[in-house]
Amino acid sequence: MAGAQTVAELGEHALLKLIAERVDSSTQRVGIGDDAAVVSTPSEFTAISTDVLVADEHFRLAWSTPQDIGARVAAASLADVAAMGAQPTALVVSLVLPGETTVDWTMGFLSGVIAECDRANAVLVGGDVSAGSVVTATGTAMGDCLTGEPITRGGAQVGDVVAVAGVLGWSAAGLAILSRGFSSPRSLVQAFRRPVPPYESALAAAEAGAHAMIDVSDGLLADVGHIAQASNVSVTLKSTALAVSEELSSAAAAFNFEPLKWVLTGGEDHSFVATFADVGDLPPGFQVIGSVVQAGDEPVLVDGHAPRIAGGFDHFRSAGR
Amino acid sequence: MAGAQTVAELGEHALLKLIAERVDSSTQRVGIGDDAAVVSTPSEFTAISTDVLVADEHFRLAWSTPQDIGARVAAASLADVAAMGAQPTALVVSLVLPGETTVDWTMGFLSGVIAECDRANAVLVGGDVSAGSVVTATGTAMGDCLTGEPITRGGAQVGDVVAVAGVLGWSAAGLAILSRGFSSPRSLVQAFRRPVPPYESALAAAEAGAHAMIDVSDGLLADVGHIAQASNVSVTLKSTALAVSEELSSAAAAFNFEPLKWVLTGGEDHSFVATFADVGDLPPGFQVIGSVVQAGDEPVLVDGHAPRIAGGFDHFRSAGR
Repeated sequence: MAGAQTVAELGEHALLKLIAERVDSSTQRVGIGDDAAVVSTPSEFTAISTDVLVADEHFRLAWSTPQDIGARVAAASLADVAAMGAQPTALVVSLVLPGETTVDWTMGFLSGVIAECDRANAVLVGGDVSAGSVVTATGTAMGDCLTGEPITRGGAQVGDVVAVAGVLGWSAAGLAILSRGFSSPRSLVQAFRRPVPPYESALAAAEAGAHAMIDVSDGLLADVGHIAQASNVSVTLKSTALAVSEELSSAAAAFNFEPLKWVLTGGEDHSFVATFADVGDLPPGFQVIGSVVQAGDEPVLVDGHAPRIAGGFDHFRSAGR
Repeated sequence: MAGAQTVAELGEHALLKLIAERVDSSTQRVGIGDDAAVVSTPSEFTAISTDVLVADEHFRLAWSTPQDIGARVAAASLADVAAMGAQPTALVVSLVLPGETTVDWTMGFLSGVIAECDRANAVLVGGDVSAGSVVTATGTAMGDCLTGEPITRGGAQVGDVVAVAGVLGWSAAGLAILSRGFSSPRSLVQAFRRPVPPYESALAAAEAGAHAMIDVSDGLLADVGHIAQASNVSVTLKSTALAVSEELSSAAAAFNFEPLKWVLTGGEDHSFVATFADVGDLPPGFQVIGSVVQAGDEPVLVDGHAPRIAGGFDHFRSAGR
């Protein structure tokens, strides 16, 4: 069976040919198979972002399907571009594979990348493959700044409402569940394996005139803190407005864990937090979680107090433990 | 000393801060420190290309300085963009590092990336870092198609002259020298460590109306073959026109090796091969090496005969050996 063949058996050039056949380049000026892809850039400004995911750092081959991993690689940079208020247009992916990886796995990964591009209305236009001992995938996304100006982290104004589109803490809960050898609730596990950034909400926020926006990849406290620091304001969050779902509560109860900690510090959900001048500006999918206040001692307050939970994740320190 | 510190000791966020301080984002609409960089795209079309380099596959940490490795990562995708006749504008780099990597090494790598961006008139606008057991760097370059239309591999016409800008076989010879434990001739070793794509020649070729162009990364025979196949023509090369430098000859003599094999099959020089309607069209830096003929049984002929040397390199097969 061709699919159970390894990429070493198939060879680099045959693999690239197989990948090129699977990718639809018809909408590009130049697609896969030349030195570079060439894409249309009608807007004055183009957003570009790159994210690398490494096996056993960001995912485990035993925990996720190749489709899930491909989708997650694509989502990481597509969500960053959407968080600028830019319509994702094109993605390129560099993939490092051990020679013993099957062709089936590689094609599954590719399907996941393409499926996530479809979700974002973007197109996979190119990439690179190399041998290497650790599966490592880098996605780089481009996007059109359709509204002219990008939505940065630095535009929040005192009096703005702060709102979120997408789930919070689900990916972190899913990772905790898998780490303990469980596989349910399935919704949380799936949120870790394959986050579903609500791209359309991010673009709607840009059209609705959002002042600032960020992709929640480091955790809510950390990422809202990035908005606060870049905008020279503080943000006060309301814990009762932060949805702790039934699944999150029951998983937390089973692990004797505080579910709000997942909501406040869990990363990799690729939800979007944006600030708006008025609650009436909120596009569908966004829920108010707080407000922008004068810069104080703490960049982010929860119910008026400094949060007692440290946020963020350090890949190098984790690796050094 | 701060520089001898490891990235694990410094931590991910402090490292990112240090990197952001070293990068000049002043020319970008949005530089490092937001979800995505935002760059100006005045042209209708933008070229984008990504290349991944893996330690012990593409380079060895013991053989190259971090500056050389950074420059090579940048050159790989910048040269691809230039080979489309596009002016490189922006680069993003994803870097995977073991926790024990020093901050000095990382900053050296960054210097090399920035120096090569300077050579190409492009700007480093963003990136990502992650922990991982193998140093792995992915560069993704964007470029403006200044002349309106990209120069693809598929535009060569019967009667065109075929010309090259840049060295051929030097990188492969340098690798062979290092592999045997030697370090001279230095010019060849340095060509492997840090290729110098003649970006300005590629852009001049586009302005001069080149019909087809390619970056020589797989080897001359393989890459001219790509032009031949994409253009549905054959190319005949003249061996006497292929410059075998003094250094190449003497290194080949020392290893009892045929120097023309390096010239014909050595990859990673990032020289540019282009075809032009007339020899009078050649911009400075280009030398005629052959001509385009009707498609025959062989995509590439040398002195009228099928080359007896197999070209190209297969990363997966190499890894599987």
